[in-house]
Amino acid sequence: MDLLHSYKKTRNRTVALCDTLETEDFVVQPVAFVSPPKWHLGHTTWFFETFLLKPYARHYTAFDDSYDYVFNSYYETVGARVIRTDRGNLSRPSVSDVLSYRNHVDKAMAAFLKASPSPELDSLIRLGLAHEEQHQELLLTDIKYILGNNPLFPSYGPPPPLPTPTLSYESGEFLTVKEGVYEIGFQGTGFCFDNELVRHKVYLETYAISPTLVTNAEYLEFMEAGGYTDFRYWHSDGWAWVNDHGIEAPLYWHKIDGQWQRYGWKGLVAVDPAAPVCHVSYYEAAAYAAWKHLRLPTEAEWEIAAEDFHWGLRWEWTESAYLPYPGFEKAPGAIGEYNGKFMVNQQVLRGASEATSPGHSRISYRNFFQPELRWQFTGIRLAR
Amino acid sequence: MDLLHSYKKTRNRTVALCDTLETEDFVVQPVAFVSPPKWHLGHTTWFFETFLLKPYARHYTAFDDSYDYVFNSYYETVGARVIRTDRGNLSRPSVSDVLSYRNHVDKAMAAFLKASPSPELDSLIRLGLAHEEQHQELLLTDIKYILGNNPLFPSYGPPPPLPTPTLSYESGEFLTVKEGVYEIGFQGTGFCFDNELVRHKVYLETYAISPTLVTNAEYLEFMEAGGYTDFRYWHSDGWAWVNDHGIEAPLYWHKIDGQWQRYGWKGLVAVDPAAPVCHVSYYEAAAYAAWKHLRLPTEAEWEIAAEDFHWGLRWEWTESAYLPYPGFEKAPGAIGEYNGKFMVNQQVLRGASEATSPGHSRISYRNFFQPELRWQFTGIRLAR
Amino acid sequence: MDLLHSYKKTRNRTVALCDTLETEDFVVQPVAFVSPPKWHLGHTTWFFETFLLKPYARHYTAFDDSYDYVFNSYYETVGARVIRTDRGNLSRPSVSDVLSYRNHVDKAMAAFLKASPSPELDSLIRLGLAHEEQHQELLLTDIKYILGNNPLFPSYGPPPPLPTPTLSYESGEFLTVKEGVYEIGFQGTGFCFDNELVRHKVYLETYAISPTLVTNAEYLEFMEAGGYTDFRYWHSDGWAWVNDHGIEAPLYWHKIDGQWQRYGWKGLVAVDPAAPVCHVSYYEAAAYAAWKHLRLPTEAEWEIAAEDFHWGLRWEWTESAYLPYPGFEKAPGAIGEYNGKFMVNQQVLRGASEATSPGHSRISYRNFFQPELRWQFTGIRLAR
Amino acid sequence: MDLLHSYKKTRNRTVALCDTLETEDFVVQPVAFVSPPKWHLGHTTWFFETFLLKPYARHYTAFDDSYDYVFNSYYETVGARVIRTDRGNLSRPSVSDVLSYRNHVDKAMAAFLKASPSPELDSLIRLGLAHEEQHQELLLTDIKYILGNNPLFPSYGPPPPLPTPTLSYESGEFLTVKEGVYEIGFQGTGFCFDNELVRHKVYLETYAISPTLVTNAEYLEFMEAGGYTDFRYWHSDGWAWVNDHGIEAPLYWHKIDGQWQRYGWKGLVAVDPAAPVCHVSYYEAAAYAAWKHLRLPTEAEWEIAAEDFHWGLRWEWTESAYLPYPGFEKAPGAIGEYNGKFMVNQQVLRGASEATSPGHSRISYRNFFQPELRWQFTGIRLAR
Repeated sequence: MDLLHSYKKTRNRTVALCDTLETEDFVVQPVAFVSPPKWHLGHTTWFFETFLLKPYARHYTAFDDSYDYVFNSYYETVGARVIRTDRGNLSRPSVSDVLSYRNHVDKAMAAFLKASPSPELDSLIRLGLAHEEQHQELLLTDIKYILGNNPLFPSYGPPPPLPTPTLSYESGEFLTVKEGVYEIGFQGTGFCFDNELVRHKVYLETYAISPTLVTNAEYLEFMEAGGYTDFRYWHSDGWAWVNDHGIEAPLYWHKIDGQWQRYGWKGLVAVDPAAPVCHVSYYEAAAYAAWKHLRLPTEAEWEIAAEDFHWGLRWEWTESAYLPYPGFEKAPGAIGEYNGKFMVNQQVLRGASEATSPGHSRISYRNFFQPELRWQFTGIRLAR
Repeated sequence: MDLLHSYKKTRNRTVALCDTLETEDFVVQPVAFVSPPKWHLGHTTWFFETFLLKPYARHYTAFDDSYDYVFNSYYETVGARVIRTDRGNLSRPSVSDVLSYRNHVDKAMAAFLKASPSPELDSLIRLGLAHEEQHQELLLTDIKYILGNNPLFPSYGPPPPLPTPTLSYESGEFLTVKEGVYEIGFQGTGFCFDNELVRHKVYLETYAISPTLVTNAEYLEFMEAGGYTDFRYWHSDGWAWVNDHGIEAPLYWHKIDGQWQRYGWKGLVAVDPAAPVCHVSYYEAAAYAAWKHLRLPTEAEWEIAAEDFHWGLRWEWTESAYLPYPGFEKAPGAIGEYNGKFMVNQQVLRGASEATSPGHSRISYRNFFQPELRWQFTGIRLAR
Repeated sequence: MDLLHSYKKTRNRTVALCDTLETEDFVVQPVAFVSPPKWHLGHTTWFFETFLLKPYARHYTAFDDSYDYVFNSYYETVGARVIRTDRGNLSRPSVSDVLSYRNHVDKAMAAFLKASPSPELDSLIRLGLAHEEQHQELLLTDIKYILGNNPLFPSYGPPPPLPTPTLSYESGEFLTVKEGVYEIGFQGTGFCFDNELVRHKVYLETYAISPTLVTNAEYLEFMEAGGYTDFRYWHSDGWAWVNDHGIEAPLYWHKIDGQWQRYGWKGLVAVDPAAPVCHVSYYEAAAYAAWKHLRLPTEAEWEIAAEDFHWGLRWEWTESAYLPYPGFEKAPGAIGEYNGKFMVNQQVLRGASEATSPGHSRISYRNFFQPELRWQFTGIRLAR
Repeated sequence: MDLLHSYKKTRNRTVALCDTLETEDFVVQPVAFVSPPKWHLGHTTWFFETFLLKPYARHYTAFDDSYDYVFNSYYETVGARVIRTDRGNLSRPSVSDVLSYRNHVDKAMAAFLKASPSPELDSLIRLGLAHEEQHQELLLTDIKYILGNNPLFPSYGPPPPLPTPTLSYESGEFLTVKEGVYEIGFQGTGFCFDNELVRHKVYLETYAISPTLVTNAEYLEFMEAGGYTDFRYWHSDGWAWVNDHGIEAPLYWHKIDGQWQRYGWKGLVAVDPAAPVCHVSYYEAAAYAAWKHLRLPTEAEWEIAAEDFHWGLRWEWTESAYLPYPGFEKAPGAIGEYNGKFMVNQQVLRGASEATSPGHSRISYRNFFQPELRWQFTGIRLAR
């Protein structure tokens, strides 16, 4: 029953996050890396239907066979899928159809969970819920992108039930960690993703890490010092990205009548100097660090030090590429496509953000994105 | 009052054409040349607001100043516009907002028309209505594209109130026209577009033209004879188009279990051998004609012969490029952007189609599209 | 023997045009529409080998079978061809190999011509020579592009043996032609291309045409009046072209220290105000005419009036799209690919230029290019 | 004098590598990542002129000021540069000009070196020579690409003076390395690149590594088992790369009459089953390893084990992304652009290849390329 309770709570939260949307907002896909909200609603449902109900629930009847094609994301094992960039071209299934699909699956799942599935399925169900929590965050970041790139700058309405940051962001002394052999990776008995395993030893040189995130005020200094126009601070790929796309500020920032404003949940607001900078790419994070004659921490440095500072408001770019831990093994079948196949050309982010689902994050969590992306709630922590 | 009646009738028909749509269908733009239905609803309204109400109606209050930016199409004179390919990224204004916009403008126009505007504005109002009728056809062809490219192939519902073709399409003898000096172009006192003027003389060699359109059965012969794989029938640009896009049948055709089906207003149906072929590009029309050792008519040949055959079910590709008639003059200001600036790289189509608004077509009407486009209801008439 | 003499003279001239080139200049292809000089040398030779020697010359041994693949241009009938944009990637065959190929074919052709081929082959041989003359002009324009886009601006050396223009370019009264039925198209017994046939009647309205070409001084007025930044003068496609490519002057013009210079055969020189403007696109020609409240002539207007003015220094853009004349028929086989398949999306140019081979031009000659191209020696004549 | 001797030897070898080329081969650039041979000749010369002669040699006169623009590669500090993809469009400076440039600089450098420059410049000169050795390998791989993609498959002539591999490639038992703290990075007093520093400790889990490279015969098994058509073995980016480019074999492989052949220095030859597979991307290397249920080694694993196996015939892909070592610091100025700015989106390769300059490699050497590139002499070593 605990699992059923978790199931309902997680599933309901996904729909609740869309409460203030207009039907039209569920449909569009302004760039390839954003998915339409109704696709998130359908895809998370498809996960439970495909991996739990169809193989294990007796007498389950699929809601609509064509949905397999529409809501599959990248699971090559499971069959053809709608090319990702085309999702925004699909007006059907309608939002109302997708909500019916959710109800259909939720009813079947409730019955299935009440019937006490074999304990071996527990981890698969928990994976489905963790998957849905990940999509909750993507749903929020995608909604922000859809509304924030509309020339009318519509409000999302009252902010989502997000964690209230009570953290202090007064700048502090860097924390020092002595060189030696440390252990990183998941330990314990709860849920974790395969990419957090195997827990293993690493050797770290002595390093220092900031207890606080870089603020908007600090980042503005970089901008005003010409940071975006001096190639010396940038990776070669980053410099090409800045110039090809005319980048000159974090995402969602607009200079209006000489003042920097940013698009937030309620529309355009003034940039708050004390808040941690948000929506920067890895390239920007690394360039900022270079300008300060500092660097970003590695993911191992982050994990070892994290118990000694507050984290959770921003996904923090690290200097680590996303690679398998020693002893990493892919699960067999479609579930094995979850993480391993992305282990090239991406950077690790650590922490969590104001859009992360409650209870979803942990100290060993490895988030990852391409270095140019910045529609997640990303920020900067410095090391040396 | 006559003009008011026309105004209401035309404006209401536009909305009526959308009766069977879901809200989601109003939003998407699967390719650059298709516009979202809600954009058509807004843009036709913007025309009356911008060219009639704002300059001439006393005390008119604009519905929303930002709409100027959102619903301007290509009128460079009038200010910045949303890049055409981005229209499908905009979830706002919502459909309901756009309908309110229409009501707001319709009320103001009704008052304006009742107050008897100066006769000089008549032709501008009639241009606005002709413009809306053109968008009615585009609305239908865009809806068909949106639904017809959805993997669920949803029905548009009952077909729109379209003309019932009572025409006979039995193949007949080609009609012969003797060489000599003829006159083409608009004559009379009603409304016409600037591109139909000035009526002028042309010299035509003796020619023969088919009284009927090419049927699906006839076009299938071309397909089965390998027409799409033999470069000899194709323009150089057409051959590149066929190969770059893997073209092997008209748009909306799907071979399912060995049978050709096509997407129509009610979903997928079998191809009717007796119906005139539809949704072909100029390249396909010209290749078909070359395969038959025949050719397409010029627009002058079409216009001179058209009184002697039935037309109106398909927009018929001609061998004429879209160029100004002798003595053509652009109107001053934004209205002058209507036609003249497109007079390069396009082919003329003559006739009308099942999607053309009632009363919109006439024998001197010059439609025009790029030679590769085929989402209009286009067909083929042969000449020699 | 007359044909042999013509053959040698034409073939020698092609090589002579390359006298001042470095080996490296024969190889590169800076843009897709330019071909490397060694490709022109090979392709014109391939024409005689493929269409004359292989089918008709007894005991002819091909120079190298792989050349068929390398030097075929667009003749789909004859087999696979090197994709046009890849020509600049081929360092082999070397220039010296290509010259050996020319010698091999020239010897065989000389023997073949001495043996008096059947008279039916005469027109094919003359087509081969006309084809080579066309490539002589392309060779010159491509060389100019290759050198003129090199940051070192190397000189071509002494200008090629081009016609000395003795024409007067003082501005004169427009010539008036009365309305009526006229005849255009090739007449006579000499050589012409298939696209100049059939000679036929056209009806022309009364028109006036300038006896002189637009000069650099006149074109500079347009530039200084903001012609490149005012959309009202431009076709929609032309306006997109101007903005996408940042066009603000004719090709090869550079503003250096406030002075307009142009790249010519000897390197950078000051723009001569009295010379006819050169290297403009159709879009620029049409925009200039619109700015003057005039227009470009149609090709029929040009041909009827051309006896009354000097022409031959510039290819003159006309308002006519490139379309088949009434009664036009493609030759069967590969030769039929010569002209007909290009009859869409191109504009007709009339006249000739300083780079045209001596004796190659005539009053009925129809040159054609896409409206955005301007590396030919193109100019502007006005009409109204 | 020792340095002068090294200088002459290295500089002469670069030119000697081009001995069998035709002039035309020096010019072309078939893809963006390949540079024309004459560019390599010029760019390596530009390095000595820019960083040694101009700042430190009294009375040095630049050969040609415009060369600064032409031969600068990516050194943003030093000024404008020819966009990399445009190098193949430049026929000038000619090969002969570039050789004169080399002579000019070599004479000045000889005088400069005889005059005993201050010892502080030693490392800069050695960097210039190491830089030239790197370009020698690129020169060879670029030449191979230029000739190997020519439809005539010309021979490079006698193979370059490359190391004769005397290594045994009989398959052997995997070598086991016990877990513990190890040290990697450059140590000693000779030359190394900045990216090999600082030598530092790493913790390695117990691992096993193959003493031999994967052979063509072994790789063919993967191909025949359908390795290129089964997504399960591939990274997500790798699978997209395979499908977008239709990859189905290593670079330079051609199936001719049912037999696999490869382009080598002397033209097309049969694939040798016993030779180590060459010209594979990181994606292919990783997919092969996944198919074998093994993995690639990390760069630390490679470096620790390398003393116990033969290496030097192939650049061996590792599972390590190219990242800074702890304590890495960029040099100030243009030299600082050498390595650090590429530390994102690339994979590390270890070892050396048959095209590596004699004496250039060492056990701590870190080569790096994007994961899809394969025109280097890349191969596969397995670990578990």
